Amino acid sequence: MAVLHNDTFLRALLKQPVDYTPVWLMRQAGRYLPEYRATRAKAGSFLELCHNTELATEVTLQPLERFKLDAAILFSDILTVPDAMGLGLHFVEGEGPRFTHPLQHEQDIVHLQVPDMSRLRYVFDAVSSIRQALNGRIPLIGFSGSPFTLACYMVEGGGSRDFRLLKTMLYQRPQLLHKILDINAQTVTAYLNEQIASGAQAVQIFDTWGGILSDAAFQEFDLFYLRQVVSGLQREADGRQVPVIVFTKGGGQWLEQLAALEVDALGVDWTVNLQQARQQVGQRVALQGNLDPLALFGNPESIACEVKRLLAGYGAGSGHVFNLGHGINQFTDPEMVKYVVDEVHRLSVGYHQN
Amino acid sequence: MAVLHNDTFLRALLKQPVDYTPVWLMRQAGRYLPEYRATRAKAGSFLELCHNTELATEVTLQPLERFKLDAAILFSDILTVPDAMGLGLHFVEGEGPRFTHPLQHEQDIVHLQVPDMSRLRYVFDAVSSIRQALNGRIPLIGFSGSPFTLACYMVEGGGSRDFRLLKTMLYQRPQLLHKILDINAQTVTAYLNEQIASGAQAVQIFDTWGGILSDAAFQEFDLFYLRQVVSGLQREADGRQVPVIVFTKGGGQWLEQLAALEVDALGVDWTVNLQQARQQVGQRVALQGNLDPLALFGNPESIACEVKRLLAGYGAGSGHVFNLGHGINQFTDPEMVKYVVDEVHRLSVGYHQN
Repeated sequence: MAVLHNDTFLRALLKQPVDYTPVWLMRQAGRYLPEYRATRAKAGSFLELCHNTELATEVTLQPLERFKLDAAILFSDILTVPDAMGLGLHFVEGEGPRFTHPLQHEQDIVHLQVPDMSRLRYVFDAVSSIRQALNGRIPLIGFSGSPFTLACYMVEGGGSRDFRLLKTMLYQRPQLLHKILDINAQTVTAYLNEQIASGAQAVQIFDTWGGILSDAAFQEFDLFYLRQVVSGLQREADGRQVPVIVFTKGGGQWLEQLAALEVDALGVDWTVNLQQARQQVGQRVALQGNLDPLALFGNPESIACEVKRLLAGYGAGSGHVFNLGHGINQFTDPEMVKYVVDEVHRLSVGYHQN
Repeated sequence: MAVLHNDTFLRALLKQPVDYTPVWLMRQAGRYLPEYRATRAKAGSFLELCHNTELATEVTLQPLERFKLDAAILFSDILTVPDAMGLGLHFVEGEGPRFTHPLQHEQDIVHLQVPDMSRLRYVFDAVSSIRQALNGRIPLIGFSGSPFTLACYMVEGGGSRDFRLLKTMLYQRPQLLHKILDINAQTVTAYLNEQIASGAQAVQIFDTWGGILSDAAFQEFDLFYLRQVVSGLQREADGRQVPVIVFTKGGGQWLEQLAALEVDALGVDWTVNLQQARQQVGQRVALQGNLDPLALFGNPESIACEVKRLLAGYGAGSGHVFNLGHGINQFTDPEMVKYVVDEVHRLSVGYHQN
């Protein structure tokens, strides 16, 4: 493996001294980039893009040609996992993901199993290919959905406004949901470990829907399984620590509990006050975030103002990875993305002068 | 005016001793009730229902015939206010509210004015009519959207998934948004005062979209104007205090700042831990909430369990009004609503024995 030239991102996650605050952006390879849209058109569909090692590598690297990002993230989708379990993932244009075989009845669930990881070979191949293509330039992040977030889609059969089917199961048949979550936790653990073995240098667990749960349900149906996954992860590869990031959207009020997971960093959405969050989590974890993705619809002055506010909010010292508080909006102007990345680098130097 | 027979709700909001925890449910008069659907069909449309004093009174009282609720809430819509400002409210079947003249350009905004309250006469007439029909049975709650929440719809021209137009204005042209918010705050203040003068015995400000803001933007564009409104409210009528409730959905992390408003109570959504929330707000305000609306899709056992958990979470003493953490889902079984109301009454007595 090539020597890693820029390890600022990995060091910040481990709260080791850095020269500036590293930055990457959730969904940095995506529809807001014309070159992404061109590659996707070439692939035929989003899923074919995920399945094609060469093209997945290509789109992962596209934003690095434009922006001085400090990490790359595997181009893939969190729903590859339930697809490998046989749920039949497909995308309905303009409506998002759908499963042919959602888990809505007991008989759908009793047969659910941890899939053979060979069914996700294409993901691990993409990880290897991207790692090789990066050639030590910056680290590669692998990822998975959280057990609970995956279960949301698996039960609903797609996205949902109110997650009524999921919640009905949660309140009426909690043991069925626990069965799904248990299988998901085992699967996610194996999936992330295989990504790490294939070359991922850090991993992020996207807990996109934790924030729809009541406080009590969050503990029982989400946090518990996050802990299962985190405790099963391979935390070292090539003699170097592999940091683990958990991002619960809408999880600002559970930061202390999330910080008690054995993770290295927590992602926080844009509603969180970074200064208060740092006080809450103390020395336990680094923080990643949390610019409002829609702040990129401002102008250079307003963006500089927001970047300054967030850097000042976290304050001096390592342990902050700059990111958005959620994925880039597809209508974002790439020029504003370039501006934010450069401003983070320029303005953060003063917070790392020891 | 008739003597108020059941003032448990008003007393709980003021943290005065009560015999049991009072309960009402956001959107308790609504589509989940067959009798509501019948009246709405008779009215012709949702807006005609809001405009018709007799029918608005009828639907407000419908849930009281089924459930032992401790408060009634005016049947109306938060968007009556921008409609009175000339934005042209209409509803597109299956898509929700739309404005014919949204506020997307400077020239739309410079002419915006506090509307003459006579344009909202139909709302105040409904308040008077409902108050009379209640005949002292339980108190009547008036309401308004918050200045920020109204601005979301006014700028977007309807609902939105990402509030891109609103956020673009917020970041690029903050002074335009401040102008709207200033007008909204003046209007909401006058609107609620007129409801109070017409017979509302408590008022709730629905800040449905505060939770989409970054921490910094929440302070500047939402909290500031909530304070404006609250400070301008008439807090007494008929020699009795008129309690003020603010409900910011997704505002769990701003409870301390919200509690510093001169309000009597804060509504909290279902993600909030009620015990921690009570510790955070201390003696300053009562709390209203916060059953997951989807918990009503459980069974009697799971509902009883959730009710117990919330009552125990708040603990002994006055200052808790039981409610959902958001409006009733339209597919809710009315039998489960009856069950939850009765369980709150039955199980809460033990928390009020001094």
